[in-house]
Amino acid sequence: MFYEKYLKMREKNNSVLIVGLDSDTNKFNSKFSKDAIGIFEFNKYIIEQTNEYVCGYKPNIAFYEKHGYKGIQALEKTVEYIKKYTELPIIIDAKRGDIGNTAAAYAEAFFKYLKVDSITINPYMGMETINPYIELENSHVFVLGLTSNKGAKDFELENDLYLKVIKNVNEYNKKFKDKIGIVVGATNDEHIEKITKNSGNMVYLIPGIGAQGGSIEKLFKGLNGYKNIVINSSRGIIFSEDPKKSAKELKENLNKARGL
Amino acid sequence: MFYEKYLKMREKNNSVLIVGLDSDTNKFNSKFSKDAIGIFEFNKYIIEQTNEYVCGYKPNIAFYEKHGYKGIQALEKTVEYIKKYTELPIIIDAKRGDIGNTAAAYAEAFFKYLKVDSITINPYMGMETINPYIELENSHVFVLGLTSNKGAKDFELENDLYLKVIKNVNEYNKKFKDKIGIVVGATNDEHIEKITKNSGNMVYLIPGIGAQGGSIEKLFKGLNGYKNIVINSSRGIIFSEDPKKSAKELKENLNKARGL
Repeated sequence: MFYEKYLKMREKNNSVLIVGLDSDTNKFNSKFSKDAIGIFEFNKYIIEQTNEYVCGYKPNIAFYEKHGYKGIQALEKTVEYIKKYTELPIIIDAKRGDIGNTAAAYAEAFFKYLKVDSITINPYMGMETINPYIELENSHVFVLGLTSNKGAKDFELENDLYLKVIKNVNEYNKKFKDKIGIVVGATNDEHIEKITKNSGNMVYLIPGIGAQGGSIEKLFKGLNGYKNIVINSSRGIIFSEDPKKSAKELKENLNKARGL
Repeated sequence: MFYEKYLKMREKNNSVLIVGLDSDTNKFNSKFSKDAIGIFEFNKYIIEQTNEYVCGYKPNIAFYEKHGYKGIQALEKTVEYIKKYTELPIIIDAKRGDIGNTAAAYAEAFFKYLKVDSITINPYMGMETINPYIELENSHVFVLGLTSNKGAKDFELENDLYLKVIKNVNEYNKKFKDKIGIVVGATNDEHIEKITKNSGNMVYLIPGIGAQGGSIEKLFKGLNGYKNIVINSSRGIIFSEDPKKSAKELKENLNKARGL
């Protein structure tokens, strides 16, 4: 169960950092081949370098789908590897969203076949589309609330759609006992206070610091002591010269901001 | 290019019907094995039975992902088969939605690796998330507008979000010369008139008749002569006793409703 696993590893590694395995072969250095085999070798290396500084991993499935079925095989091997050598929870960043019978098929893909701990999903099509995931045993989802990209202003921020989503999702989370979290972009820090008032104790998955320009200082000001957070960094760690050092440093900076 | 291919095949086969290859192995009869191999054999059978009555195929990728990398292999073989033996356009129902570099990876997956004609995408994260798809050559997307499920009332219909999406997307479609269509659920027929007034000549991908309860009569009343339509049927055809007969009948019923 994601929530317990997260709490345990947050404590054990004293970290709210999650590393995004957005393993884009275009950005690989010459040590790794730019194909599905290279992806798995790259991920192994990143996991070995970073696992003691994080509370989980988040592969974004787009970078695997790009390589067709062999890419999906690399993802499957990566998931297996993380589960075998660590106790860290795995969130697949998939942003899936579809109606009943289709959502049920996605839920099977991620929780019965791939057996990960959580996935991200998109709420556009309504609350019923969340059910097929959370009705499964050992499942958990992060629902997109307010994302970190500029486009968030087009529909999410318009008429406070994000807040309506978060309020609805929070009711579901109470009913389904901590099986839901929400995505809260670090770049939209001025809205975070409103979110903390409407989200109970749901875990926030927070992208947007680093490459996307979100500031740690402003983010934590917005969070104002809210503790159930997972802060994602992808490119800033996995493509840095020294992923181990980058993960350690970011973990420490985040802990400072947490007042630890 | 999807739009030209669609117009050509609509004319050639005199049909606006598209068959959804939602090839759920749980619903296979004993002729087909309930695994990835069975999926491809099943799809081959459906394509052979139905290709002269349709203007395209729409596999929903969830039913392939459910079987892991072997399922994706079955999808790849299905796409190859359709392209080799027909001129019909292929829409992958994927409902992807993500930020810039990730959307670009999905775009590569579908238009460079799998080489299909169109995919469905989700607009929640904003208009910029559409760019990476339509900036590619030979690409086309269907953006979710108003979907056919009950949950559409939660966010899409609230504050006319669907209409805001459709108006924005229509502006994009003019700029990107017919590379975008929209999803318009048949079950929400009372809103279709408003959509036709705000969507230029974009192709509507219309799910929701049949299993989901949308009525052909009400749908066409809402469409009021609007011609750029693709009407999807999945379960009603592929799991019927006689897919050939079901496809032929539905094509003819739709043509009657079109006044042909």
